Amino acid sequence: MKKGIDNMPIVTEYDTIAAISTPPGEGAISIVRLSGDQAVEIAESVFRGPNLLKVASHTIHYGHIIEPQTKKEIDEVMVSVMRAPKTFTREDVVEINCHGGIVPTNKILQLLLATGARMAEPGEFTKRAFLNGRIDLTQAESVMDLIRAKTDRAMQVALDQLDGNLHHLIHELRAEISQVLVQVEVNIDYPEYDEEEITAKMLREKAIMVQQRIDQLLATAQQGKILREGLATAIIGRPNVGKSSLLNYLLHEDKAIVTDVAGTTRDVLEEYVNVQGVPLKLIDTAGIHETEDKVEKIGVARSRKALSQADLIVLVLNASEPITEEDRSLIEETKAQKRLVILNKTDLPQKISPADLAALGVKESPIFASIKNQSGLSSIEQQIKVLFFGGIENSQQNVLVSNNRQIGLLQQAKASLVSVVNGLDAQVPIDLVQIDMTACWEKLGEITGENVPDELITQLFSQFCLGK
Amino acid sequence: MKKGIDNMPIVTEYDTIAAISTPPGEGAISIVRLSGDQAVEIAESVFRGPNLLKVASHTIHYGHIIEPQTKKEIDEVMVSVMRAPKTFTREDVVEINCHGGIVPTNKILQLLLATGARMAEPGEFTKRAFLNGRIDLTQAESVMDLIRAKTDRAMQVALDQLDGNLHHLIHELRAEISQVLVQVEVNIDYPEYDEEEITAKMLREKAIMVQQRIDQLLATAQQGKILREGLATAIIGRPNVGKSSLLNYLLHEDKAIVTDVAGTTRDVLEEYVNVQGVPLKLIDTAGIHETEDKVEKIGVARSRKALSQADLIVLVLNASEPITEEDRSLIEETKAQKRLVILNKTDLPQKISPADLAALGVKESPIFASIKNQSGLSSIEQQIKVLFFGGIENSQQNVLVSNNRQIGLLQQAKASLVSVVNGLDAQVPIDLVQIDMTACWEKLGEITGENVPDELITQLFSQFCLGK
Repeated sequence: MKKGIDNMPIVTEYDTIAAISTPPGEGAISIVRLSGDQAVEIAESVFRGPNLLKVASHTIHYGHIIEPQTKKEIDEVMVSVMRAPKTFTREDVVEINCHGGIVPTNKILQLLLATGARMAEPGEFTKRAFLNGRIDLTQAESVMDLIRAKTDRAMQVALDQLDGNLHHLIHELRAEISQVLVQVEVNIDYPEYDEEEITAKMLREKAIMVQQRIDQLLATAQQGKILREGLATAIIGRPNVGKSSLLNYLLHEDKAIVTDVAGTTRDVLEEYVNVQGVPLKLIDTAGIHETEDKVEKIGVARSRKALSQADLIVLVLNASEPITEEDRSLIEETKAQKRLVILNKTDLPQKISPADLAALGVKESPIFASIKNQSGLSSIEQQIKVLFFGGIENSQQNVLVSNNRQIGLLQQAKASLVSVVNGLDAQVPIDLVQIDMTACWEKLGEITGENVPDELITQLFSQFCLGK
Repeated sequence: MKKGIDNMPIVTEYDTIAAISTPPGEGAISIVRLSGDQAVEIAESVFRGPNLLKVASHTIHYGHIIEPQTKKEIDEVMVSVMRAPKTFTREDVVEINCHGGIVPTNKILQLLLATGARMAEPGEFTKRAFLNGRIDLTQAESVMDLIRAKTDRAMQVALDQLDGNLHHLIHELRAEISQVLVQVEVNIDYPEYDEEEITAKMLREKAIMVQQRIDQLLATAQQGKILREGLATAIIGRPNVGKSSLLNYLLHEDKAIVTDVAGTTRDVLEEYVNVQGVPLKLIDTAGIHETEDKVEKIGVARSRKALSQADLIVLVLNASEPITEEDRSLIEETKAQKRLVILNKTDLPQKISPADLAALGVKESPIFASIKNQSGLSSIEQQIKVLFFGGIENSQQNVLVSNNRQIGLLQQAKASLVSVVNGLDAQVPIDLVQIDMTACWEKLGEITGENVPDELITQLFSQFCLGK
């Protein structure tokens, strides 16, 4: 790739792309967005209103979209004209805000496509922002993370990345490495100054320092991933142990995501709940119980599969009744997974003790709760947080890495550094060690997109949503 | 209500409202919209970027939304400032375009609500456009029709109404009526000029003329309603008669609505297909057949209910096999509904004749088709159009009434005119006839919103989507 955010942007001439940039569906406003050299010309050719070619940049204009041949009106719109370079893509951008209907919005898009624009690929606007040097690859990725964020904390991680925090950190590390590589080069090129031992010491120190920084980043990666993707969570237990009450508690009490404002999109994400900043994606396992019914059996099989793929099992037991065969089989079935064992109904006389559970091979300390009486619930939440975030107050740490691509590259960069140190220990010649150090520099560059093959760029942006 | 679109607007001071104006869900861009006296002030209080209080109207500004207390960034945004009166509501409007995530978008809305804005009720932006005299009630209604339009033609009807075509027509009719009422008043006030017979003649002529215009409008109402709401259509028949082939034909061939552009919202509306401008809402009746299976029975019961509520039945028979018991019962079951009877598989030797169907009480002429060979399909489409639009080329007619409120008021206005004529025929005193004529004038006024009680306004706008 040709440039990073810090280099001067080299804006290449691309064709003009168009897409609907608002979520699909009926709404009050939809936006059809154009980006490219011909954005304003194409918009003007279907617009009746002020001459868009002559208006000032970053201004908004009222008018109508008109089918040029038939002169038929398509919609009443507000058009925003934003001239390069101060735009999302660093190209000329036009946004057509129309009455959010599906038919008129598509009609406008089709008209733009018929008038010289090309249908944007998913993520292509952001890709252009990257290719035109406005943002680096970590920032581009954070754009999608921001859109898909399930909790405030996940949003914050994405925003930090969008602000370039990871970009700057990687940039610093690469500067450190290139500095030492230049020094090594000098030492090799001018063998009269050759002080092999000093060079080796310098390389080792730098490798260890960079490795520590990478380790710090990787230490937050697990949290970053959970924040980004959510934890697939199954609440299980036999009938009437309190699963529904727990579920209701999690779904209400301001925990269900995106429900605090009336009329918002509860149905879209209602399966996510926010437990002390940990986004849980609740898996429906209502059907897990023994059954002879043929149809129910299908449901049970499906639930069991979901269960085996869960990141977290919340196993609810009724402490007021002795352990049953069904409890036993649920305990057995989930023993290999991250699990919370809840002894519910502590308001009644207890028939199950922690020792009973230990005897069955349960290694977790059970949490005593009376979900009905709202007791023990904060322990449950606390435990979930401890289990995944190690109980650390996360707002203190800047979680920066959150996706597999970044994590994989950091691990590869780290592996190169390990090779550097091992090589030095084994007194491998400096020019061979230098190769590993350079590999580390390159892997770090891939994170920000400075050393990334085109196919990977294409693949990465194709995961974006349309219109972004 | 206080004013119409043609009167000077009397902008009242309302509080400032806020809502998410893009469809719910994840997308590239979401818009949070503010309207009211404090719109710019409230936006400025959570914005880091150029001072919005000082920027020119209808300009766009880059910056960040900031939580005022913690100074934490919420999102990177583009803010549009539009000062009254040239705005959607005729009030100051601010639109915050953010990275379309659910969490950040809601966060921004919450912040605005915490900073002095009030959550907008559904339709409240449009309601303000109405209350502030920018649009009349028919135009307000057309805004929602436009959003919900299922076909180009439906969109065109809504656009015509948005452009004020119905408004102007109603306005004309009201002017005609008030003109004659003034004349009647003069004749009553100055009895020396009293020419009872001439007054009666004038009233009758006017009443008949207005009634004709109303009849013309009502004649289009059925079409308008279908365009607006779509036709619930069930394709039925026993297994292997060709239902799926017909369905596939309808769903492909550029007929499925909103599928012509790759990546658009097929899943949202995929059940609508556009047959020569008639939007069909396909009902899933896959399961209608005799069964002993308990679970299937539930499906069958559900399908039967949907079937009985369909606006159009498309009954497919296999012409290459004799009529079966199942065919007979489907024929019987749907005899009271608008129905198309298709004799499919005409490529094979025929075993069913129109006479066989007539013998079973089928009144419709069957359509011969070989769906597999694509023959007879245009007849099917043509028949659907004839059945609902009477075969008229609709694009000739411009003003269409499409909703029950307007239809109801037109019928009431017409009833008043009938009373006028009947009164005159029965030589009822002019001042009583005058009352009916005035009632007509008032009913027409309700259509455009000039004579509408507040509760009705409230109820009407509450059917709008949030953020509009």
